[in-house]
Amino acid sequence: MNLVILVEGDAVGDGCYRLNDHRAEHIRTILRAREGDKVEVGLLNGSMGTAQISSLSGDEIELTCEELHPPQELLSTDLICALPRPQTLKKVLITCGMMGIRRLHLIRANRVEKSYYQSPLIQPENQLPYLLEGLSQGKLTRLPQVTVHDRFKVFFEDTFPDLETTETIQGLRLLASTEALQNMSDFYDAAVDRVTIAIGPEGGWVPFEVDLMQQAGFLRFVLGRWVLRVETAVVSALGQLDLLRMKS
Amino acid sequence: MNLVILVEGDAVGDGCYRLNDHRAEHIRTILRAREGDKVEVGLLNGSMGTAQISSLSGDEIELTCEELHPPQELLSTDLICALPRPQTLKKVLITCGMMGIRRLHLIRANRVEKSYYQSPLIQPENQLPYLLEGLSQGKLTRLPQVTVHDRFKVFFEDTFPDLETTETIQGLRLLASTEALQNMSDFYDAAVDRVTIAIGPEGGWVPFEVDLMQQAGFLRFVLGRWVLRVETAVVSALGQLDLLRMKS
Repeated sequence: MNLVILVEGDAVGDGCYRLNDHRAEHIRTILRAREGDKVEVGLLNGSMGTAQISSLSGDEIELTCEELHPPQELLSTDLICALPRPQTLKKVLITCGMMGIRRLHLIRANRVEKSYYQSPLIQPENQLPYLLEGLSQGKLTRLPQVTVHDRFKVFFEDTFPDLETTETIQGLRLLASTEALQNMSDFYDAAVDRVTIAIGPEGGWVPFEVDLMQQAGFLRFVLGRWVLRVETAVVSALGQLDLLRMKS
Repeated sequence: MNLVILVEGDAVGDGCYRLNDHRAEHIRTILRAREGDKVEVGLLNGSMGTAQISSLSGDEIELTCEELHPPQELLSTDLICALPRPQTLKKVLITCGMMGIRRLHLIRANRVEKSYYQSPLIQPENQLPYLLEGLSQGKLTRLPQVTVHDRFKVFFEDTFPDLETTETIQGLRLLASTEALQNMSDFYDAAVDRVTIAIGPEGGWVPFEVDLMQQAGFLRFVLGRWVLRVETAVVSALGQLDLLRMKS
């Protein structure tokens, strides 16, 4: 926990927050902090900085914020994932929080098991702890927006283009594929600051899906020589994008 | 399981292998293969190709290899990790198998908990299943060499240089650091085909360690803007290296 994320429900007064859950425990037992010590905090979807521990008793900790500043501006990175199995989804949610994803679209694909749509993790309130865990690790405060879509074609023909029309320049749309001949750097353009990366299901997309995504402007790129798990492909792709953005 | 990895102990005759463990179960229940079907196989540290299911009865499957070919030549990527907690080490071992790591050095560092050295995962026989799982996912057959070192200074002053003296050109030595000003592409040189990447413990290296690694020729690079978990930093760094190698 590199940043203690504070939410509205924690507030007990102007700049004061009371914690009695795993965050309080972390501050006590891992950080071994005492009254008067400072910890790094971030307000969900808001500013970040330091807070002083104004009281610490039993399971409860009170924090008083000081020196808050606006968070870093983030470039827009959106992720489209074929809805993965719940254990994998947890990892993807943590990664999205940790690596600054703006929107995560979870979509149905031919090789997505229907049972995954019955998972409790489909519900936003069950996703939240994993997203917060990611923010806390990555030292970020902007909560990724997660949406679940159950019609592949509708998503690419209507939902996604509608979201994008609010923007003046079309963002870069990338589709990870083990069969692609080009890599991310072949398509990357520093002038385009919005990037959407699509990662397929275990077993890959079916040809119909790839065709439809290509019609929607998605460019196929290869991540490397290996066949990666979904959660690994997500991190590798985001790492590659980070590198290209730092270079430019 | 994209590749069924076969080991010596599975052999029951010339090109014939008998399986009755999780691999047999995977072939039966996930691949839903039947007698006569073909599966992709790889011989540990050897060739890969296809095998035919010559018999399938109860829990047992017999495979007959056909069309084996040598594996891809792999560039040398070595990884140095401060020994992580056991749950993280499992993920790192899988990644090493999946992403073509040649050697993994697990080293002691100031912020490594001593108890991690008591973990059963320190033993090679307990590491093997995770490495094999990675190979099977990444479609590779070369087993990463894992070594555990319990003296930081000795490792960087003697062990590591000794390993490297067998090579004529010094490989690229990189050290991930959230404080570095340069990124991997600033140091990457396509003429050097061996790369060693060092990833620190949760909480980072202490200054003494960074100094000593820099004296040993390690160059500090930043992975991106986020503070990543160890297992995520490993994947992101390997993804970035893959991208640079594809570009050149």
